Amino acid sequence: MARHRHATELPSIGKLDRCAGQLGRQLSTLLREAIRRGELKPGELLPSTRHLASSLGVSRGTVLEAFEQLIAEGYLEAQAGAGTRVAAALSVGPNDGPHGGSKTRAPARDVAGPAAPMRLSTRAAAFAEISRQFAPLPPVPFAVSVPMGPTAPDDVWRRLGNRTRALRAAAPSGYDDPQGVPALRSAIADYVRRSRSVHCTPEQVIVTTGTQQGLYLSCQVLLDTNDLAWVEDPAYRGITGILESTGHQRGMVRVPVDEAGIDVEAGRAMAEHARAAFVTPSHQYPLGMPLSMARRNALLAWARANGAWIVEDDYDSELRYVGHPFPSLQGLAPELVVYLGTFSKILFPSLRLGYAIVPPPLVPAFCGARVLIDRHSPSADQHVLAAFIDEGHLDRHIRRVRLVYADRRQHLIAAIARWIPDELAWLQPGDQGMHLVLWLAEGTDDQRIASLAVEAGVAVRPVSPTYSAANARPGLVLGLGGYSDEQIDAAVKTLAKVLNSAARGRAASRAG
Amino acid sequence: MARHRHATELPSIGKLDRCAGQLGRQLSTLLREAIRRGELKPGELLPSTRHLASSLGVSRGTVLEAFEQLIAEGYLEAQAGAGTRVAAALSVGPNDGPHGGSKTRAPARDVAGPAAPMRLSTRAAAFAEISRQFAPLPPVPFAVSVPMGPTAPDDVWRRLGNRTRALRAAAPSGYDDPQGVPALRSAIADYVRRSRSVHCTPEQVIVTTGTQQGLYLSCQVLLDTNDLAWVEDPAYRGITGILESTGHQRGMVRVPVDEAGIDVEAGRAMAEHARAAFVTPSHQYPLGMPLSMARRNALLAWARANGAWIVEDDYDSELRYVGHPFPSLQGLAPELVVYLGTFSKILFPSLRLGYAIVPPPLVPAFCGARVLIDRHSPSADQHVLAAFIDEGHLDRHIRRVRLVYADRRQHLIAAIARWIPDELAWLQPGDQGMHLVLWLAEGTDDQRIASLAVEAGVAVRPVSPTYSAANARPGLVLGLGGYSDEQIDAAVKTLAKVLNSAARGRAASRAG
Repeated sequence: MARHRHATELPSIGKLDRCAGQLGRQLSTLLREAIRRGELKPGELLPSTRHLASSLGVSRGTVLEAFEQLIAEGYLEAQAGAGTRVAAALSVGPNDGPHGGSKTRAPARDVAGPAAPMRLSTRAAAFAEISRQFAPLPPVPFAVSVPMGPTAPDDVWRRLGNRTRALRAAAPSGYDDPQGVPALRSAIADYVRRSRSVHCTPEQVIVTTGTQQGLYLSCQVLLDTNDLAWVEDPAYRGITGILESTGHQRGMVRVPVDEAGIDVEAGRAMAEHARAAFVTPSHQYPLGMPLSMARRNALLAWARANGAWIVEDDYDSELRYVGHPFPSLQGLAPELVVYLGTFSKILFPSLRLGYAIVPPPLVPAFCGARVLIDRHSPSADQHVLAAFIDEGHLDRHIRRVRLVYADRRQHLIAAIARWIPDELAWLQPGDQGMHLVLWLAEGTDDQRIASLAVEAGVAVRPVSPTYSAANARPGLVLGLGGYSDEQIDAAVKTLAKVLNSAARGRAASRAG
Repeated sequence: MARHRHATELPSIGKLDRCAGQLGRQLSTLLREAIRRGELKPGELLPSTRHLASSLGVSRGTVLEAFEQLIAEGYLEAQAGAGTRVAAALSVGPNDGPHGGSKTRAPARDVAGPAAPMRLSTRAAAFAEISRQFAPLPPVPFAVSVPMGPTAPDDVWRRLGNRTRALRAAAPSGYDDPQGVPALRSAIADYVRRSRSVHCTPEQVIVTTGTQQGLYLSCQVLLDTNDLAWVEDPAYRGITGILESTGHQRGMVRVPVDEAGIDVEAGRAMAEHARAAFVTPSHQYPLGMPLSMARRNALLAWARANGAWIVEDDYDSELRYVGHPFPSLQGLAPELVVYLGTFSKILFPSLRLGYAIVPPPLVPAFCGARVLIDRHSPSADQHVLAAFIDEGHLDRHIRRVRLVYADRRQHLIAAIARWIPDELAWLQPGDQGMHLVLWLAEGTDDQRIASLAVEAGVAVRPVSPTYSAANARPGLVLGLGGYSDEQIDAAVKTLAKVLNSAARGRAASRAG
């Protein structure tokens, strides 16, 4: 392409589509592409705006708009009285640009791969595996906590939401307090005081997106890089996944669990000077038994003696079907316990609201860690939830849901007794929570069973990933939801088929 | 307390309040406290339920309920035919329990501090400092992006929200896809394609809670422990805070910024083999200039040659007041750019919804990292936002807000010219975004000025924390919001007073 002044060839940059409008924008795109392709070269002088307007048949304003845009972007440069040129700074070597040197136009997305291959980090692979393990289940038995029929707070929640969002306080607003909306923090403090014997003021409440974020924040705030932490064996995959991915893999001490909960003596023998213990005292996850009083005392005694923090994951504490819920560890030792709870499961998981109750010296650190992760929880639903609690809807909802889940649980237990042979699978005893553990015969590959079950339309999670590799046992987590008798029966029968077929496969391979 | 069989002294455990109801629960609380105080000792035999019921004047069912609860909690143990005893397992040493050995009842919260002092982690102190720096500002000038009057989407957003939440898809539901609701991912892909020349499919869109979470996830996924990363100097405090707190402090390479944006040659000289570069090409944060085309090419050339990722924070790209927005780096090299955007500022910050557009091989890792942090964004508002975009409300809102902010910006510039003397402070040139930088005279302590301004009712953030210590310059970030002329004028006058008074203080201390 020649470099003489009046670029009669400029129309070859492409066609303007007069019907599509935005002619200035179209022209700047065409010129930008010509520069990228090398058809207009660094330093090259462009026609005057008047000349170009006339040769393209557009207004001079259109050309001016395109030139201004490209000057702002750094493609062109203008000097008073000297016309407009392609920016000299663009000559940074023939292959620097994505299309540098190429004469044929190629959309950026079709460009061949980069010069150096894009290597994924080691952590990216670990995160991809977590993603696989947590892949969402369809809303069918036995996905946990699927709000349906009597377990869904739909109408009350929606009407209260519409009313609350119409108020000034809950209308769209600017950045909010990372600790949470004051009305919700007060409502939560009242709720945990009366329902869980938690000792706290609203100033100790950090609104979270749920227990998962409470665990994440606790790891961030409580542990330095080389600190040790006790984690139950088995434990919620959410906590082991966090520690594995945030540089604490080697610091994670898996402490065995027996029928009284976490074995404190074993923990002391393994890591007396751990900085924190992550425990599920109301209802061990996933096994379901409570931590005995003797163990509670022993755990607190250890923590006190060592200045260690206890992170009390009090998930599902509302769902105790016999007696009333256990008092919290936090109530026994508020100064060394971070207490975590969530509304996600008892209300509905897609709400994403929970809470951490933390000792006062930790409040600023939890807020700072939260700011860096996501600033704060969305504000409007915090106001809705505060009203929902204050007006008594949460208590009523919990009473109703507790009855429904108790009933669903009994039906599930009966269906399993009826259709699944004892030698293939048996239930873990337990009297609370939103799931049951179904143990599988030794040698069963629970991850494979879970995959086959999901393929057959039954949503279950394997138990073995909750254990350390050395202690893994095969089993399935069967979540409760607002499912009908018919749904539960059909799913148990399907699961029985999957288990029977896998057992025949194992028998055949032993025989063969 | 004697250990004979019929414990006539049991009523001394406290009084039942017959008016308060829940007698079983009251009784279990009283018995539990008596055990904690040591008045009932491990192994001690309790009266029969019949006897206790009669001596307390309650039904036998009430006593049975309390006993069952305490057996479940591990305080009591029952043997068939042998009565009910205080659990022998409770004898774990006199000082193990929070009240062990004490004869006087003290609520747990009043217990003296733990035996070992609770030491905060090193990171806790860093997080507390972050919390201070990000403390929420009141909704007055110059807090950024406070939706008021014409910049608030209130009525349309609320009515559409009420309508959308009444639909089955947006009603309360179970755990959702960590990647985001499909309808919103499609709407986002369309939006960034037409407005920002981003090349992507909905499968590459990860719904986030905003740019802050996009940056957090990028750090988690792209960087291994000892990797180096380029970060602009100055840069958004949100990104430097993340790297400091997640073990990448030493890997953070602060690359200087000049009038053409990040100095790529300087970056190569400092850390040729960095794994990622975090940049703000549309609008450098906080300075406001775009990255020139030559620098864009040089940055991409470096990334290609080294297999390095580019994280493109495209914040505020909607708010360009001259010409149309810049095309994205992502559009030039979709295979090596993670593109971040947010609806929080253009719509309203308390919404907490944004997006990351990532190369396909990174999608599972981003989902896994997201699961561990908080599972997923709340679902209902994702549906509302998808409808808001699809029905054209977002485009209309952006057009309206752009005019309002352009006008507010001009008014602010004029007010500063009128009331703040040039020798005290001057504006950074720039023609886009939701804030202006007001530079302060050398030697001014901008953090102190910001504190004094906030005390005087004017909300500003200091600029110096955005720089590395060596390059820090004093200045203030003045955010735009839907403020009235009167609010802006009053705030500028107050700010002028604060600056004048501080300048007189400096002059006096130099003279003195």
